[in-house]
Amino acid sequence: MSVEVITIGSELLNGLVRNTNVDLIGDLLAEVGLEAAYHTTVGDDGKRIGEVFRTAVHRAEVVIATGGLGPTPDDLTRRVIATVFRRRLILDQVILDRIRARFKERGQEMPPVNEAQALIPRGARVIENHRGTAPGLHFTHLRTELFALPGVPSEAEMMLREYVIPCLRAATAGLARGLRVVRTIGIGESALAERLSGFEMEEPDLKLGMIARASGVDVHISASSRDGAWLNVVLDRAERKLWERAGRHAYGRGRETLSEVLGRALLGRDLTIATAESFTGGTVGAEIVATPGSSRYYKGGVIAYSNDAKESLLSVGRETLERKGAVSAEVAEEMARGARIRLGAHCAVSTTGIAGPDGATTAGKPVGLAYLGFSTAEGESSERWIFGGSRADVIAKAAAHALDLSRRNLGVNEEWFGPSSRS
Amino acid sequence: MSVEVITIGSELLNGLVRNTNVDLIGDLLAEVGLEAAYHTTVGDDGKRIGEVFRTAVHRAEVVIATGGLGPTPDDLTRRVIATVFRRRLILDQVILDRIRARFKERGQEMPPVNEAQALIPRGARVIENHRGTAPGLHFTHLRTELFALPGVPSEAEMMLREYVIPCLRAATAGLARGLRVVRTIGIGESALAERLSGFEMEEPDLKLGMIARASGVDVHISASSRDGAWLNVVLDRAERKLWERAGRHAYGRGRETLSEVLGRALLGRDLTIATAESFTGGTVGAEIVATPGSSRYYKGGVIAYSNDAKESLLSVGRETLERKGAVSAEVAEEMARGARIRLGAHCAVSTTGIAGPDGATTAGKPVGLAYLGFSTAEGESSERWIFGGSRADVIAKAAAHALDLSRRNLGVNEEWFGPSSRS
Repeated sequence: MSVEVITIGSELLNGLVRNTNVDLIGDLLAEVGLEAAYHTTVGDDGKRIGEVFRTAVHRAEVVIATGGLGPTPDDLTRRVIATVFRRRLILDQVILDRIRARFKERGQEMPPVNEAQALIPRGARVIENHRGTAPGLHFTHLRTELFALPGVPSEAEMMLREYVIPCLRAATAGLARGLRVVRTIGIGESALAERLSGFEMEEPDLKLGMIARASGVDVHISASSRDGAWLNVVLDRAERKLWERAGRHAYGRGRETLSEVLGRALLGRDLTIATAESFTGGTVGAEIVATPGSSRYYKGGVIAYSNDAKESLLSVGRETLERKGAVSAEVAEEMARGARIRLGAHCAVSTTGIAGPDGATTAGKPVGLAYLGFSTAEGESSERWIFGGSRADVIAKAAAHALDLSRRNLGVNEEWFGPSSRS
Repeated sequence: MSVEVITIGSELLNGLVRNTNVDLIGDLLAEVGLEAAYHTTVGDDGKRIGEVFRTAVHRAEVVIATGGLGPTPDDLTRRVIATVFRRRLILDQVILDRIRARFKERGQEMPPVNEAQALIPRGARVIENHRGTAPGLHFTHLRTELFALPGVPSEAEMMLREYVIPCLRAATAGLARGLRVVRTIGIGESALAERLSGFEMEEPDLKLGMIARASGVDVHISASSRDGAWLNVVLDRAERKLWERAGRHAYGRGRETLSEVLGRALLGRDLTIATAESFTGGTVGAEIVATPGSSRYYKGGVIAYSNDAKESLLSVGRETLERKGAVSAEVAEEMARGARIRLGAHCAVSTTGIAGPDGATTAGKPVGLAYLGFSTAEGESSERWIFGGSRADVIAKAAAHALDLSRRNLGVNEEWFGPSSRS
């Protein structure tokens, strides 16, 4: 079954907005064993969008399009579909009422332009949008199934999961494709590749790939078969092997985040955590609360961006600050201890460092230098890191490693696949 | 001049590798006033690549392709070009010697497969590759200029900068293109479109577009002309008009963030700020420190995720918490006041709310409800919002609006373009 993905919007072509819908659709197609044959992006230009749809139905059996379903005059997808596929637009009263109700919920009148979103090409089914006003469209043209979704990523995602992917799953029944991901942190791509050398010879049915992200390197293994049971056995075995070879660097599987892994570990042990952040400015806290239910184990934190705040809110000693400097192992440890005690948590994690581009004043303290501290009732410890990249990279990496330091201090990972090689 | 960008490689379609070449080419095209009309991605499949090239030369005057020039059997671009454009492949001895020499430099023998990289379609010019073995190709088919480059981003980038972009600059000589962006927050796409109705009639030379982001709606205006001075006058006038129509919702221009605008305002007034966050868990602080130099005006903050922390670290009254609930205007205001005083800042901003998906227990307090507080020595104020979308959306929107509340309370915006319509 050949699939074409079409993303519509001028902002996707001029480098202003990253095309996240493509990655999302790629991931979701993989879940049902599919892969796009073509992906086309086109600006908000009626003639060009029409040309892209015409080409797509000619060469693909499934077309998934995002964008151009908004209410404004530069949202052209509905009109182009009507023209290219010769389907009259009909005002759908049910949809119109639904859009009006959505505005009413927020205490607003529906602006007249939004009426356009209730125009449905004849014969098309409506895909409900629970997160916004633009409904999606599904129709068949000759032998091609077309799905048109809004461009807003969260809306497109929900409609893909609830409608499009289930449709495709039904159509591809029989062929199973498996994809497993082992996520690692604290080890580079080439060092990881060395640990995995020989893996592809041992597992010839699998495809292996790596992707470097700010949070670490993800290792992917995939395979396809009509024998789903065999597929699972092979993937289970390979995943376990990957996990063992990656050792303490492996932290999660699939889309699991460090925040989720840490949260589960805290919940499982009935522990609470607090944060004390200097140069990450709240990023560690923000990562922790990204996981739903985090209020059960996250007490809160202090963003001690200034030395005054480190003293007054975290009880860091003025002497320590003066003698060792704000970016030091000692200050990181006192910050973690202060947060743990002030917030009444079982443990706490801290960050202090130099995000750059300026600020590296003292010799031996370059941009990217960071100390991460950890505190429990039994005492404090810290790690020294030098992170590369832009200011945003340094902050993101420091936050990820602070979560990872907490994970390792809580002894997470060993329990899932037997003792790992703590190196 | 219409441009099509083609990126070749199966890894780009399955969501495993981010297509960075597209963003890169978009940025570089903008430098010479161009924008791709189409962007197509296709896997390593000869028939499909051929189909994509055929479509591209039909609809674009310039085609820039990356990928498929490596030495292995799944690198098909050279062969496809030979077939589609009926150009015999000829072994280029100079190129072959160059590839051999490159291996020799690294103390290696050239593997036989690499010989394929010296096969050049008849009539094509070779684009030198100083970073790898794959040479690029440039040739003309009817009225279309085609450039084929390797997929490795660093190699493609160098060849774009050294060869392709200079070629295009020569071809577009004299034509200037201008793009202006006005960023807004707190107003929906359709409400903004109504404020701008008639704009395109008044400014017929301009193209207008809108992009909705978590932080608000960006309005783009662009135009092309051979008269650069005229272009600037027209864009200046239109930008000012946009700014005035958007009123207090307009906060920045170009790529400016709320964090940068707020930081500049604080610096200009010699003021400092502190944060008090509940459900945003540090996101507001993280946004503030994303701007370099923020240590000059950001004192730090408290992440008061639990009620205990709100009391002990921010002096929120237990009575207020019990009577009004943690998600209330009163608590937001006390939090801001507490942070301002505890951190010794001139002003402070606070967030309290329900991020979801669970947590909406009390009637009248739905998921997405947020109170944002602001405090100065003169007193406190707060705003009530209901944000839609996923947990991540709600948190991101609340953080953006907290920065915006601070911006508005500091009176930013009026001074740049005269008094705005405070509605």
